[in-house]
Amino acid sequence: MVKIGIVGGTGYTGVELLRLLAQHPQADVVAITSRGDAGMPVADMYPSLRGRVDLRFEDPAKANLAACDLVFFATPNGIAMQQAPALLEAGVRVIDLAADFRIKDIAEWEKWYGMTHACPDWVEKAVYGLPELNRQQIPSARLVANPGCYPTAVQLGFMPLVKAGLVDISSLIADAKSGVSGAGRKAETHTLFAEASDNFKAYGVAGHRHLPEISQGLAGMAGARVGLTFVPHLTPIIRGIHATLYAKIRAEVDFQALYEETYAGEAFVDVMPAKSHPETRSVRAANTCRIAVHRPQGGDTLVVLSVIDNLVKGAAGQAVQNMNLMFGLGETTGLCQLPLLP
Amino acid sequence: MVKIGIVGGTGYTGVELLRLLAQHPQADVVAITSRGDAGMPVADMYPSLRGRVDLRFEDPAKANLAACDLVFFATPNGIAMQQAPALLEAGVRVIDLAADFRIKDIAEWEKWYGMTHACPDWVEKAVYGLPELNRQQIPSARLVANPGCYPTAVQLGFMPLVKAGLVDISSLIADAKSGVSGAGRKAETHTLFAEASDNFKAYGVAGHRHLPEISQGLAGMAGARVGLTFVPHLTPIIRGIHATLYAKIRAEVDFQALYEETYAGEAFVDVMPAKSHPETRSVRAANTCRIAVHRPQGGDTLVVLSVIDNLVKGAAGQAVQNMNLMFGLGETTGLCQLPLLP
Amino acid sequence: MVKIGIVGGTGYTGVELLRLLAQHPQADVVAITSRGDAGMPVADMYPSLRGRVDLRFEDPAKANLAACDLVFFATPNGIAMQQAPALLEAGVRVIDLAADFRIKDIAEWEKWYGMTHACPDWVEKAVYGLPELNRQQIPSARLVANPGCYPTAVQLGFMPLVKAGLVDISSLIADAKSGVSGAGRKAETHTLFAEASDNFKAYGVAGHRHLPEISQGLAGMAGARVGLTFVPHLTPIIRGIHATLYAKIRAEVDFQALYEETYAGEAFVDVMPAKSHPETRSVRAANTCRIAVHRPQGGDTLVVLSVIDNLVKGAAGQAVQNMNLMFGLGETTGLCQLPLLP
Amino acid sequence: MVKIGIVGGTGYTGVELLRLLAQHPQADVVAITSRGDAGMPVADMYPSLRGRVDLRFEDPAKANLAACDLVFFATPNGIAMQQAPALLEAGVRVIDLAADFRIKDIAEWEKWYGMTHACPDWVEKAVYGLPELNRQQIPSARLVANPGCYPTAVQLGFMPLVKAGLVDISSLIADAKSGVSGAGRKAETHTLFAEASDNFKAYGVAGHRHLPEISQGLAGMAGARVGLTFVPHLTPIIRGIHATLYAKIRAEVDFQALYEETYAGEAFVDVMPAKSHPETRSVRAANTCRIAVHRPQGGDTLVVLSVIDNLVKGAAGQAVQNMNLMFGLGETTGLCQLPLLP
Repeated sequence: MVKIGIVGGTGYTGVELLRLLAQHPQADVVAITSRGDAGMPVADMYPSLRGRVDLRFEDPAKANLAACDLVFFATPNGIAMQQAPALLEAGVRVIDLAADFRIKDIAEWEKWYGMTHACPDWVEKAVYGLPELNRQQIPSARLVANPGCYPTAVQLGFMPLVKAGLVDISSLIADAKSGVSGAGRKAETHTLFAEASDNFKAYGVAGHRHLPEISQGLAGMAGARVGLTFVPHLTPIIRGIHATLYAKIRAEVDFQALYEETYAGEAFVDVMPAKSHPETRSVRAANTCRIAVHRPQGGDTLVVLSVIDNLVKGAAGQAVQNMNLMFGLGETTGLCQLPLLP
Repeated sequence: MVKIGIVGGTGYTGVELLRLLAQHPQADVVAITSRGDAGMPVADMYPSLRGRVDLRFEDPAKANLAACDLVFFATPNGIAMQQAPALLEAGVRVIDLAADFRIKDIAEWEKWYGMTHACPDWVEKAVYGLPELNRQQIPSARLVANPGCYPTAVQLGFMPLVKAGLVDISSLIADAKSGVSGAGRKAETHTLFAEASDNFKAYGVAGHRHLPEISQGLAGMAGARVGLTFVPHLTPIIRGIHATLYAKIRAEVDFQALYEETYAGEAFVDVMPAKSHPETRSVRAANTCRIAVHRPQGGDTLVVLSVIDNLVKGAAGQAVQNMNLMFGLGETTGLCQLPLLP
Repeated sequence: MVKIGIVGGTGYTGVELLRLLAQHPQADVVAITSRGDAGMPVADMYPSLRGRVDLRFEDPAKANLAACDLVFFATPNGIAMQQAPALLEAGVRVIDLAADFRIKDIAEWEKWYGMTHACPDWVEKAVYGLPELNRQQIPSARLVANPGCYPTAVQLGFMPLVKAGLVDISSLIADAKSGVSGAGRKAETHTLFAEASDNFKAYGVAGHRHLPEISQGLAGMAGARVGLTFVPHLTPIIRGIHATLYAKIRAEVDFQALYEETYAGEAFVDVMPAKSHPETRSVRAANTCRIAVHRPQGGDTLVVLSVIDNLVKGAAGQAVQNMNLMFGLGETTGLCQLPLLP
Repeated sequence: MVKIGIVGGTGYTGVELLRLLAQHPQADVVAITSRGDAGMPVADMYPSLRGRVDLRFEDPAKANLAACDLVFFATPNGIAMQQAPALLEAGVRVIDLAADFRIKDIAEWEKWYGMTHACPDWVEKAVYGLPELNRQQIPSARLVANPGCYPTAVQLGFMPLVKAGLVDISSLIADAKSGVSGAGRKAETHTLFAEASDNFKAYGVAGHRHLPEISQGLAGMAGARVGLTFVPHLTPIIRGIHATLYAKIRAEVDFQALYEETYAGEAFVDVMPAKSHPETRSVRAANTCRIAVHRPQGGDTLVVLSVIDNLVKGAAGQAVQNMNLMFGLGETTGLCQLPLLP
């Protein structure tokens, strides 16, 4: 059993971690912290866990996280970089679901996140936890930077093309749509039901924090800088990301076969038959990315559709996948729940 | 392993049975039939099952259902009464998720369902599959009539009061709200997204088919006829029933304690603390009924709130619970998935 | 032209007043205030008003409200009782869309609203602005207490029965469902999209502030105290209230005819044919209350269904209707927009 | 007064025409037809029109459409081309809201719509009713082909760039998202609430019928063939289209100024300030197209966001705008309703 702590468990990634870990045969969650709700039983905040999760939120200052094998940070950006180093030095392994350790270029990170980085050293040592890209490095990682939701959907969608050098990497386009849970559980006007339902909009077109993360990942695959236009949108669904990706073809191959071969051994990436249209609900609650490849009208633009559940493969599920790799468990352990449809 | 057949698997109760049975350690689904879609892989209709369910829909005329231990009918009303008797006589056990065997009074059934009943004999032998009411009879049942969704929520909500004779049973009120999946997957105008979303309405106020089923159940508990006003409504959620129940108090007890005691040993009924408001999403995807008891202003009207997922505790999940009882498996086997929230 | 000021225009009742008044031929909105957003053009907050409303929010301390003929308070409870008296004494007429002047019993108001009332005198002089009940008093009113949303739907639904003394007023039940805009535009967790969508729940069962308002109104109609159980619910729609009302019949009449006669001359109450099921969307954006009367199974319980748009007939539209009456304009002036369906 | 007939009034464009025309001071709807629902009062199908629209659906064979000044066809594709010629020859003017007269290349039309065209002559004479593009030709048109919903949003978004020759027209991308009402009111499984809500997907990526219509329009603006990748998506909103347009810059200008100048005199196109994100709800129920222009990171890709209400500016509202132009009425007559927000 892996002894687990969760820091910052009141948000959606926190409760989703609890849902998954409560059903994981090798996971033993021993502590979950919340500054604001210390003392409250977790199941009082999330009645879905009644009778199944007996923990109370603990004051982060008092929780004995150093006794854990693994601590998940499900905190806002800027917390893990403050608190993780002490745990890491005490021998605890860490998976950060926030953005603190995702961007290798500290200056770039500081520009997008608007704060000074507290521990550049650990950024260097951190492994970017996209298993389909970095499976070799994860088992030995002490610190895993769990990818963002958009970056997961977009990188898995572009990876086969960019790694093989088949498309124009100077003008990639990612038109991405996210469910509202991606904005988290904090009370804000623009994510109120009466604002966000029956409504569709783009946001952050001038620049979104996931842009440098995606660009870094794609550049790593390409071995060169990429030019990416990334436009996120808010769609009135609770969970789900749909990335519609556009790339100009530079060399001909059987693109469907390329995707099928690239992901042939992957338990959590499903390349659908040609001409498919993956739906976000087809991965609701599951740690799956479904991808379909299109070449409309036989032209020179390839369209790739990639869907994930932002809280699972885009956050908590991928974190558990990383945990499985780090602790030598089967990669799919505890992650076999079927999607919920309808 | 229980060898299982599913008749009529293309609707929502069918796919929900598949989701649950695919995750059940003792279930082996060997056949699923569909008149209209024979030959199609199940996962082509329901991509959520890709890679996990390899069955194809079979022509009902050709499927070898008689070789099954158990056949679920997830068909429209009026089919099981035609097809189940032959299977039953061949020694196959049957759970009917439709209404064919729920109402003991054949004339009453024929009035509400508008057809002549094809096998009154089996109605008599059928056990009404509400385990919290009939747990003793289910293990030996050859034919189980799985309860309707509204009847499950309403009967579990009223049961402690009615059994104990504490309320006026001549004027019970059940104001119930259902998600749209309760109407099934057939294409109809009034359940289109553009009709049913951002809209709320009552329907069937003059008389809904679940009224006689609920009345029969409550009368059985009371040992007397009951007067029930039942008003169903359509609310724009996919899954979920919320029953708001009103009863006039006739005798004083500690109602909260009554409910807690009644359901103390039940794995799938959760009596919440006093003053709680159960939400439908707190049981989404789970085989749980959550109940809260209120006495507003200390008056003489008791208000009971009861929520279920109509496709799980209100249909497929309860059917699996019945299967577990019929085949001597642990009652909760395969039914421990946590609710999906958010 | 009526010179109009709006205090507290940033909430949903504020923007709805603006939508209606911008299309009203006799209304001239000269000032709109907001403490927090003074200086911002209204159309920057509500782009739906771009090109049509040129006002900026003004600091309440600086706005020349005393020069108005009429001031609407679209403020949280407790503000109008502080600020309206000075305006009233300066000869300005006032319509308060909050609850400050609705309850005649000051002690009762203070109990439910948790504060000391600042001007009981004006409570006494205020006219409760439900035109279908109080049309005679409104034209001369200096101060109108605009009814709450639930109270409008429930009172219009019960009024014919209660006035005529045909039902048992000791055990009335109002099971009411509201869209999420009823909770206003302030950022709160439980009204976030990811919390409130795909979910249904009751709330405030122990006691909701609209209960004493409804009870007062019904008691006035009956000439006696009433016993009312009122259970509000949250349904995932933006606009709309659906009240399902239950009453025990004490005397027989043609109830359908009673309703049709009662509301025969009313422009904004539509009694639908017997057996109808009014939908909330059938009144979306319109100042209409649609009502249907049912007597299920010919029993002794009458079921009345009453729907309104909570922001129109339940708030801003009714306020404009009151304005029309107060200023001698045609009652329907500016209120003839058709509902938006789908 | 313009005497108006509507053929095929039971769909969403039909009821939306009725909503708008019932509030239009110069419109007199004298007949509305429906093959399947002849005899039914319109307000029985659409209770939102109760008390405001007294028409009954008439059998198309019996309705005296030839006595009208103008007939709208709100029919499925392939009907107007059969029935409009006789009316046109009788001197009636026609606006077709379907696709029969939109594509000038008959072979192209027949390929996409899968039928032989019944009257190529009238295709030639028809004027494409996008007033912002063809305002000069519309007043004298006998037959107007009302644009499709996607084509309206996409063409208005690209028009300033393409007309001015500032972008690479060989690789335009239109990533468009539509509300579900765009699929019409016919009962189909994939547009059921339980299928389409809480879900997001692309569809028709291989080729959608609006592609040739958009390409024709853009080619006309450019004076040359264009290369367009068009990917439509379904988003769970009732009304609204959001087009996200991508174009490679070929020549530098002040793009914001270009858009503002192009649409300076247009009543129904609103160019928002730089960096804006138009929301679909900001045009809900209104005949407005809102546009915002972005140049992310100062790169060489321009991103244009364009939103409309698919039933208004994308269908019935634009048809009324065309009617106003054809009959010499003010272009905005009857089209000044404010959007509904929230």
